Amino acid sequence: MQGDGPFFTFMQWSIEMFAVIWNRLVRAGAAGTLALAASGALAGDPLPSWNDSASKSAIIGFVSGITTENGPGFVPPAERIAVFDNDGCLWSEQPAYFQLLFAIDRIRELAPDHPEWKDQQPFKAVLDNDMKALAAAGEHGLLELVMASHAGMTTVAFEKVVRDWLASARHPTTGKPYTAMVYQPMLEVLDYLRANGFKTFIVSGGGIEFMRPWTEAVYGIPPEQVIGSSIKTKFDVRDGEPVLVRLPEVNFIDDKAGKPVGINQHIGRRPVMAFGNSDGDLQMLQWTTAGTGPRIGVIVHHTDAEREWAYDRASHIGKLDKALDLAVGSGWVVVDMKNDWNKVYP
Amino acid sequence: MQGDGPFFTFMQWSIEMFAVIWNRLVRAGAAGTLALAASGALAGDPLPSWNDSASKSAIIGFVSGITTENGPGFVPPAERIAVFDNDGCLWSEQPAYFQLLFAIDRIRELAPDHPEWKDQQPFKAVLDNDMKALAAAGEHGLLELVMASHAGMTTVAFEKVVRDWLASARHPTTGKPYTAMVYQPMLEVLDYLRANGFKTFIVSGGGIEFMRPWTEAVYGIPPEQVIGSSIKTKFDVRDGEPVLVRLPEVNFIDDKAGKPVGINQHIGRRPVMAFGNSDGDLQMLQWTTAGTGPRIGVIVHHTDAEREWAYDRASHIGKLDKALDLAVGSGWVVVDMKNDWNKVYP
Repeated sequence: MQGDGPFFTFMQWSIEMFAVIWNRLVRAGAAGTLALAASGALAGDPLPSWNDSASKSAIIGFVSGITTENGPGFVPPAERIAVFDNDGCLWSEQPAYFQLLFAIDRIRELAPDHPEWKDQQPFKAVLDNDMKALAAAGEHGLLELVMASHAGMTTVAFEKVVRDWLASARHPTTGKPYTAMVYQPMLEVLDYLRANGFKTFIVSGGGIEFMRPWTEAVYGIPPEQVIGSSIKTKFDVRDGEPVLVRLPEVNFIDDKAGKPVGINQHIGRRPVMAFGNSDGDLQMLQWTTAGTGPRIGVIVHHTDAEREWAYDRASHIGKLDKALDLAVGSGWVVVDMKNDWNKVYP
Repeated sequence: MQGDGPFFTFMQWSIEMFAVIWNRLVRAGAAGTLALAASGALAGDPLPSWNDSASKSAIIGFVSGITTENGPGFVPPAERIAVFDNDGCLWSEQPAYFQLLFAIDRIRELAPDHPEWKDQQPFKAVLDNDMKALAAAGEHGLLELVMASHAGMTTVAFEKVVRDWLASARHPTTGKPYTAMVYQPMLEVLDYLRANGFKTFIVSGGGIEFMRPWTEAVYGIPPEQVIGSSIKTKFDVRDGEPVLVRLPEVNFIDDKAGKPVGINQHIGRRPVMAFGNSDGDLQMLQWTTAGTGPRIGVIVHHTDAEREWAYDRASHIGKLDKALDLAVGSGWVVVDMKNDWNKVYP
């Protein structure tokens, strides 16, 4: 076909656009979404906040390999599952897990209704701002704080509590809203994977209901793709209205060996990509990369004391020791935040 | 723009196709998939196995309403969640839940390794084909059968057991493979909803790992959208290989008041459509339809003794009594299988 003039140009453009969209649809298959059209993947570099490094090449090389149709490593879209830890992998986790800071704020807010807390640990420590006593309360004490601050209300009410807190709370050292302390390079990875037909999931030790109210807006990850720790809930009918009440009882701890269990329970198939940053992600990385076919594990190593925090083997939060040792032999990618990222926060 | 001749016709066709696909994408939003193009929704009647009835009109009317942009009842694609019971709602459940028939076959297969079962109930009842003794073993006995037949192996090994059984097992009265005893009208509903941007989930009292190996091929529902009862699993490294071992311990019973709990745990938002067939679905129907905005509950009523089975209030399997009483006042649609469906199995 030949032709010229503005009419022909317009027609040609239409056909080309049609072809572009169709090809992308076919490539993305069942998981393909409108995100395709909006995604940076249409432009040149899908990961602009990543410096040209071995990490970046490994991620892009892996995705190119599994999306190349008729290639030796092709993975059908339905099986393109990528799992991401949250604390320290998608957003910061210093000087304490943000959910713990939420629990502390919540305890202070609820204190007027609980005069007994003035003399009762670990609540006394929170109200006195006594971090030493709080640390001494240990894991059991933290659990008590979480139960007191997260249970005893309906799921709908708790969601509102989380939303309200996020809207007003500010990080103690940066002064930023917590949801502004997400990693821009990881947002790009999430977009890039989805543009290539992946379903992206969070698999976090954090509370599942603490994350769900905001992960869709912040990460593009819908609630049904968030896996986390949880307390039990109970169905009840109150004043004729069906509700789910949050009980002060642990249901599931989605950490360490719990992560593959949570993945199996929620997803029911083995991911092909896993992103973590601590020994809490070790078993998730092992489980993911032990499957047949192409698979990849990625560890975000906190090396940037200037723009974020630098910590690994000796840290009480996000301790990265055994997984770092195993990374080399396992072929996992270790991302050096300081050198691999030209930007940390959006 | 004006023009004629074959070249113009081709161009016009391209533009129209482009517009059609683009509009469908926009309408389907993030949940839209290639299924759109392949779906019967492109043709006239999206539910050809449904007779023109109040049930059919109610379903189509509801979907039209929530997908009409700028309409008063518009629901964004991300919130278009539909949940389906499995036994008696998507496939048959008589003369016994198919999973129980699987457990019985499995016990017989494993019996040579368990000589003690010859004298031990409920195993003796299974091996002697003594249905009276099996019934007498009650719920606890059934649980013992499930544990013995479903636990003690890795998740990967169990998946193969299920696949192998389904490939060879035949239904005791119809002689069909179990996966051929799915309801054609419900397959059409699943396709129709997905073509309209819905995510479809199974929420069943049946075992989550018993369903996942086949729901994608049979219903188009991927494993991550299957919710069910489960036993606990444990992460282990065996001979250097990470595995998940199935333990003889109940993790979660996804039935009755457990269904809203399971929905909340897995999906994290309230569905807008719920399909069930028994009192085991009552709380799921209540939870779904109690939310704000347009919502609908649908009950499949087994009224067809000739083509399937007819049972409700007095049945031991799929008892439908209280939910049937509540349906009218709650505005739930009650599907009359005999009169509303012109076809039962594919």
